[in-house]
Amino acid sequence: MAERTPVAVIGAAGFGGALCARLAHAHPSLELTAVTARSDAGRRHDALYPRHGVPLTMEELDPDRIAEKARAALVAYPHKAAAPAVRALRERGLKVVDLSADFRLDRERYERWYQPHEAPELIAEAVYGLPEAHRDEIRGADLVAGPGCNSTAALLALLPLSDLARDVVVDIKTGVSGAGREATTETHYVSATENVNPYKTEGHRHSAELEQELADGVRITFVPHLVPMDQGLLASCYVTTEPRLSTEEARALFERAYAGEPFVDLIDAPPRTADVRETNRCRVYVTTTGDRVLVFAAIDNLWKGAAGQAVQDLNLMLGLPETEGLQ
Amino acid sequence: MAERTPVAVIGAAGFGGALCARLAHAHPSLELTAVTARSDAGRRHDALYPRHGVPLTMEELDPDRIAEKARAALVAYPHKAAAPAVRALRERGLKVVDLSADFRLDRERYERWYQPHEAPELIAEAVYGLPEAHRDEIRGADLVAGPGCNSTAALLALLPLSDLARDVVVDIKTGVSGAGREATTETHYVSATENVNPYKTEGHRHSAELEQELADGVRITFVPHLVPMDQGLLASCYVTTEPRLSTEEARALFERAYAGEPFVDLIDAPPRTADVRETNRCRVYVTTTGDRVLVFAAIDNLWKGAAGQAVQDLNLMLGLPETEGLQ
Amino acid sequence: MAERTPVAVIGAAGFGGALCARLAHAHPSLELTAVTARSDAGRRHDALYPRHGVPLTMEELDPDRIAEKARAALVAYPHKAAAPAVRALRERGLKVVDLSADFRLDRERYERWYQPHEAPELIAEAVYGLPEAHRDEIRGADLVAGPGCNSTAALLALLPLSDLARDVVVDIKTGVSGAGREATTETHYVSATENVNPYKTEGHRHSAELEQELADGVRITFVPHLVPMDQGLLASCYVTTEPRLSTEEARALFERAYAGEPFVDLIDAPPRTADVRETNRCRVYVTTTGDRVLVFAAIDNLWKGAAGQAVQDLNLMLGLPETEGLQ
Amino acid sequence: MAERTPVAVIGAAGFGGALCARLAHAHPSLELTAVTARSDAGRRHDALYPRHGVPLTMEELDPDRIAEKARAALVAYPHKAAAPAVRALRERGLKVVDLSADFRLDRERYERWYQPHEAPELIAEAVYGLPEAHRDEIRGADLVAGPGCNSTAALLALLPLSDLARDVVVDIKTGVSGAGREATTETHYVSATENVNPYKTEGHRHSAELEQELADGVRITFVPHLVPMDQGLLASCYVTTEPRLSTEEARALFERAYAGEPFVDLIDAPPRTADVRETNRCRVYVTTTGDRVLVFAAIDNLWKGAAGQAVQDLNLMLGLPETEGLQ
Repeated sequence: MAERTPVAVIGAAGFGGALCARLAHAHPSLELTAVTARSDAGRRHDALYPRHGVPLTMEELDPDRIAEKARAALVAYPHKAAAPAVRALRERGLKVVDLSADFRLDRERYERWYQPHEAPELIAEAVYGLPEAHRDEIRGADLVAGPGCNSTAALLALLPLSDLARDVVVDIKTGVSGAGREATTETHYVSATENVNPYKTEGHRHSAELEQELADGVRITFVPHLVPMDQGLLASCYVTTEPRLSTEEARALFERAYAGEPFVDLIDAPPRTADVRETNRCRVYVTTTGDRVLVFAAIDNLWKGAAGQAVQDLNLMLGLPETEGLQ
Repeated sequence: MAERTPVAVIGAAGFGGALCARLAHAHPSLELTAVTARSDAGRRHDALYPRHGVPLTMEELDPDRIAEKARAALVAYPHKAAAPAVRALRERGLKVVDLSADFRLDRERYERWYQPHEAPELIAEAVYGLPEAHRDEIRGADLVAGPGCNSTAALLALLPLSDLARDVVVDIKTGVSGAGREATTETHYVSATENVNPYKTEGHRHSAELEQELADGVRITFVPHLVPMDQGLLASCYVTTEPRLSTEEARALFERAYAGEPFVDLIDAPPRTADVRETNRCRVYVTTTGDRVLVFAAIDNLWKGAAGQAVQDLNLMLGLPETEGLQ
Repeated sequence: MAERTPVAVIGAAGFGGALCARLAHAHPSLELTAVTARSDAGRRHDALYPRHGVPLTMEELDPDRIAEKARAALVAYPHKAAAPAVRALRERGLKVVDLSADFRLDRERYERWYQPHEAPELIAEAVYGLPEAHRDEIRGADLVAGPGCNSTAALLALLPLSDLARDVVVDIKTGVSGAGREATTETHYVSATENVNPYKTEGHRHSAELEQELADGVRITFVPHLVPMDQGLLASCYVTTEPRLSTEEARALFERAYAGEPFVDLIDAPPRTADVRETNRCRVYVTTTGDRVLVFAAIDNLWKGAAGQAVQDLNLMLGLPETEGLQ
Repeated sequence: MAERTPVAVIGAAGFGGALCARLAHAHPSLELTAVTARSDAGRRHDALYPRHGVPLTMEELDPDRIAEKARAALVAYPHKAAAPAVRALRERGLKVVDLSADFRLDRERYERWYQPHEAPELIAEAVYGLPEAHRDEIRGADLVAGPGCNSTAALLALLPLSDLARDVVVDIKTGVSGAGREATTETHYVSATENVNPYKTEGHRHSAELEQELADGVRITFVPHLVPMDQGLLASCYVTTEPRLSTEEARALFERAYAGEPFVDLIDAPPRTADVRETNRCRVYVTTTGDRVLVFAAIDNLWKGAAGQAVQDLNLMLGLPETEGLQ
């Protein structure tokens, strides 16, 4: 068997980072050599996440130590905190997939939606990590920015229509794990159960990713809704195209775009998020009503929307089979 | 105390009919004198629905007996089954609120979306039972058709914009009780939990109500989604108007339309379905992004979307205070 | 109409206190004149709890102001914080129902399970507020201690057997609202959903209430479990009696004990917590297997387990009908 | 690579059988060659269960065809229907793991709790498929009866105490998938959510398995409760032993019993069912209160409680590594 690539997961105590650790630990061609955490340093990862089965103790982030132990890293810090960590690891030569927003956007867009960038010199080398759109660039990259969960589903629903779309409404339904591990009023069980709650109705930062990745001039309305489930995300996309498309024409665009894609399934009925739970798959359904194209895309927000896609990116960066460790 | 009006609930074993029975039973000006059921006849209502506290035995529907006992009826049969029952009761002089689709639409629309009408001679006298739109007609009516749950939320979100709207996308999130009491693959707990599922993506019958009630020429795209909750419904409406409206202009239209409405709350943040649970209220939030107006309306699908609104209608028909029995 | 008694709710921002406020506000013989909160002072109560419909602004606790406005108070502070607040209100002559643990136990028991008592001089006047056991004392009391939610269900299941019971296992299943409004790792939706979790397996403080209220010498094993629901609590009680009882004998004891009880329903099948949701009722089922008596009692932990029972107590203290405002 | 053993799954449309199919399909040493179903024959398995990824069409059960295609079978029929199917397969020489109750009990016990046995001649050769208790017999067996989900958790919690236990209360909390795929009133989302519901309070058939497997003379009280979760099962066991055991003594018994067990984890805090979700693990916590030993055992009812354990049994029967395909 070929030697396995040593990897570290930075920020392994959050939901996304923890799944990165699980996937890296179980990956046939990777060897998980270190997991770090900020407030949970010193605890065993499998004490915090027994199902994930990662028998390592979380340590504080020491870039020199990580550089001794690993040749690649998955960074699962919140945005703003991620950029300096990524810089420290890139300076030491590690390939990095960053799951935060810090390297997804050009500087102008980033600073408009977030804050002054902490490591702007790295933006140029970062590749937007949606393999279905940027596979070849990811293969050659040293720094890949994992797309947001909302953006992943929305882009997979919209990219095949990008050149024809004039107007899109993206209505997202997302599970509570998307809000992160922090205990807040919104993530309290009593608040989240038996509830649907739209939020960021005046503009969610993930829409910046859509603007950047879709063709210029598409009018985008984007609203996420919190629904009472743990994992899962559905993007319902209502698209006006020019010219108007028949159902067959619309589906043909998707068939062409996703032929051979290992993780995108074009299906012939509306997707259920339950059917992609704990998988790296995206199930997509295309139809039309009146003169509008409707596209529904379902993913697991922690898998294809975060950790699974990050491993998919890393597989590409390391020249491994793209689906390895993700089946 | 004034004499209470005797009422019957026809089809009291389903979720909507059961709540009609509870509300009628607890209503200060109504006396619930009979509850009927098809397959559950012979059972006590409070054995089936202990929380509702209705101490009556469900009987089979015998219109003559009902006419002896009641002067008004709430009919909660499925569409098609409702029309003959309504006819039998109307022939015996009862005022009727029908919760099914049978009398919501003009005949042409009804027969396009449903099937040949079973009691077409009654369509002309039926009033569409959305008090916020047809209060005066409801007051004088002998037959009122309770709007669909989806339509109620969508219309309350859209009516103030009706004249200006050119295009609307209505994305509905609805709880499982909206699918009815019948045990099916879709309503199985294991299927519904941890899942979001769009359905009727090519056209839901409730959109016919929108077409009928909104101004001509509005382009409507309407998609419901099943989400893992018991009761509750959110309509997210994405509206293109002509002329384009500012947030202030849009809100002003709603303030004017709903001034004094007892059950519509204009609020200043996106509504949560949990906040209307087990109430007859509709919470509405109006905002804009780019050149689009966004309106979010939350109701309890069994209350304002069915039984609560039916009692509100009946209050109007009987000259009672509109909110009686619904606070 | 008789004058309504002015009441205040102290600690109205928590789940239990908020429901106290709702019940007091809607109560025909009470007038809610003040609501206080610690961290949420200055906010409208109905902004935090729209469904409860309490149109008052929460204020900081100033006992003098409360004494001007109210003749009775429902105190819903956590234990230890409650005692000084209760003292301040009692010193100003208010009748008080305290929902915390501070006045449920004799001093010795309290200090063994909790901490040094903050207002020990009041313990003697406090009555344990389970009306089914102490109705007459509650009627004459100025200070009543609302029982714990677990204890309420367990005691209603056990009291009729108290003299005969030798050994009881109490296995509690409780909804997440019982853990309070604070956002914690345990109350995070992602942690609580799809999970059952025993806790305090080596001894829960509510068992002290059982020891105090049941006959001496009963061996009690008491374990609560957190289950994924919002409101609701089931006590499953496995009782060894001496002498051994037949099912008929056991049920007869319960029928005698609860004849005429307005909120206790003896039923003939195992109770479902859903059937008591948002009611002040306790549904009890008694059966036997082998030589053991099994008793299952279901309540809503926020109603009969907290706020509803507190209002029931207050009704008794004020000479009002016991069920007023609770139907 | 060694040749893979061809296996069939009989009854692959139910929850347990579907998971058998997934596990067999993904198993490195098995080749899933046929899946059968009764009412869903003719449908692709992955159309019904997309996540499971089994690309086979379900066929009607034809024992001759199965015998041509497979050398072993996992039978996931309901009890009574299972026995004739098992006989047909055994007559054709297949090794069988049967997940129903049909071969778990001796004939006397079976016919007392179920009905006249359909294939009594096979009872003698059947081994009770709990590897932690009968590993060596399973290795040599041609017919293994997979234990019930409740029994699996309860026995793993009780077996190390079997000789010392005098009295046990087993209080089970189980997810809704345990009730099977059939849509019923109890499995309706609206019925199951926000609810805890004891059932079979006068005697559940799984207790017969406990009686058979535990030492004679242990008094067993066994009550299952349905809780609102999809997958998961917790057995809370309250055990009186003779002699009385200290916590250390009790834990020592478990450490000895489960040393080296690949799927049983003795842990030092109460188990959460979420931590075993979609794993074949059983997490066990042992403690004492007063003179009672308390043991809590958590499993996934579909994995260690059904399909996972069946594959574990099959691994043993075929001489494969016991954990293969189950990590």
